[in-house]
Amino acid sequence: MISKNKIKLLRSLKIKKYRSNHMRAILEGKRLIEESINNKTNIEGVWFIEDTINLKSNNNLLNKIKKMNIPYDIITKDDFLTISDTKNSQGIIAEVNIEKYKSNALKDIDGSVIVLNKISDPGNLGTIFRTSAWYGIQSIILTSNSIDPFNLKCLRSGVGAHFYFKNIIVADNKEIIKHLENENYEIYCADLQGKDITKISAKEKWALILGSEAHGFDEEFKQFNKITITKASGTESLNVAVACGIILNQLLNK
Amino acid sequence: MISKNKIKLLRSLKIKKYRSNHMRAILEGKRLIEESINNKTNIEGVWFIEDTINLKSNNNLLNKIKKMNIPYDIITKDDFLTISDTKNSQGIIAEVNIEKYKSNALKDIDGSVIVLNKISDPGNLGTIFRTSAWYGIQSIILTSNSIDPFNLKCLRSGVGAHFYFKNIIVADNKEIIKHLENENYEIYCADLQGKDITKISAKEKWALILGSEAHGFDEEFKQFNKITITKASGTESLNVAVACGIILNQLLNK
Repeated sequence: MISKNKIKLLRSLKIKKYRSNHMRAILEGKRLIEESINNKTNIEGVWFIEDTINLKSNNNLLNKIKKMNIPYDIITKDDFLTISDTKNSQGIIAEVNIEKYKSNALKDIDGSVIVLNKISDPGNLGTIFRTSAWYGIQSIILTSNSIDPFNLKCLRSGVGAHFYFKNIIVADNKEIIKHLENENYEIYCADLQGKDITKISAKEKWALILGSEAHGFDEEFKQFNKITITKASGTESLNVAVACGIILNQLLNK
Repeated sequence: MISKNKIKLLRSLKIKKYRSNHMRAILEGKRLIEESINNKTNIEGVWFIEDTINLKSNNNLLNKIKKMNIPYDIITKDDFLTISDTKNSQGIIAEVNIEKYKSNALKDIDGSVIVLNKISDPGNLGTIFRTSAWYGIQSIILTSNSIDPFNLKCLRSGVGAHFYFKNIIVADNKEIIKHLENENYEIYCADLQGKDITKISAKEKWALILGSEAHGFDEEFKQFNKITITKASGTESLNVAVACGIILNQLLNK
């Protein structure tokens, strides 16, 4: 049995303001919830409709939920439909505590970092997270004009990567630059024109800045070393998440 | 002035069957149309509403349309709305002839190729096309159980890459394998377990097979060399289009 207040809270988490107020977000769908649990996410509760998981069968996801002592409950389809985005939820949602990940303390960043400057497409942002987690990046910095990484679409395309990181930090351009310079980071901006990434020998600690596909970088970042993925053809564009993967593979396999 | 029959035809192109019957597809939005023209796409006509392009101003896109002698016309907002997906069309659509790209003649493939096995996400498929075009790949092969690459979402995420290729071929698994073997292609399957891509010295002519994120490869492809992008972390997954970019960068920069 789910309370009316809980339903109201979960519904409100579709909106950024309430995610920030409550420091909670919603996960939808089996794969996202399972991958998030694998990354030891702080899940407050899981709700599903009866068709989704047969409580009597030996279900992988349910076993993980039990093992992690996560509270779970079966709810009616009607209640479920009021909370969820029915298309992608597959009859199961979770409430996740995001306090640990939402920080603005640049001093907490660990090792080489990805800096995302006004990325506005949630699918791209989530895919960048997923790619960065694959390569073991521990900290992500977002400039304050980027979208909220805890929106539903971004969480979905991140497939649990959000919860792999030590921190996801939102900060102003100037603060970010000041910190990276003070800490002797080598700063690279991925751009269409710059030094070929295959010719770069990265220092131990670097920051890779990725801008928006549509709008590029903010002025403050244009002073830094530009690096580029040399193209073989006349086509003009590469998806920003694909570019992120190619550059990470280069910087980390030298 | 647009005829009722033309409106009916354009509307029908949202459906795969009619795209195949008429060998036409719809392009929506300024950037997609402009990038497609840059790739010398065979565009039959362009329609836009008056707010979209001011005919009297010096407009880049309009200049390109005129230079390529593409027929264009202003239509009413009401007519426009019956044809287009209003969210992404930005008040402009084009009809494109896809005859040249839809083929099943494997003998026409040129150089190293990407083989896509039952990819079902149109956004991923379009991004793979965009990435392959960046790296100068000339031919794409899709197994017959893949989605139609000329659907709206796939065209949108391809950002004109579709029209860069010499050919996009749809064929059955067995025919594909027979052809690649006869032509002495080195065949690689991207998988979670396999030889590290940084350790591979690719032959001159290779085929890279990418499977669906959710369902992997069809049985017929499992006999081939598996290659993998070595991960640095405990996370389990990489987006298939990102994987495509990383592998292409490795195979082509040796």
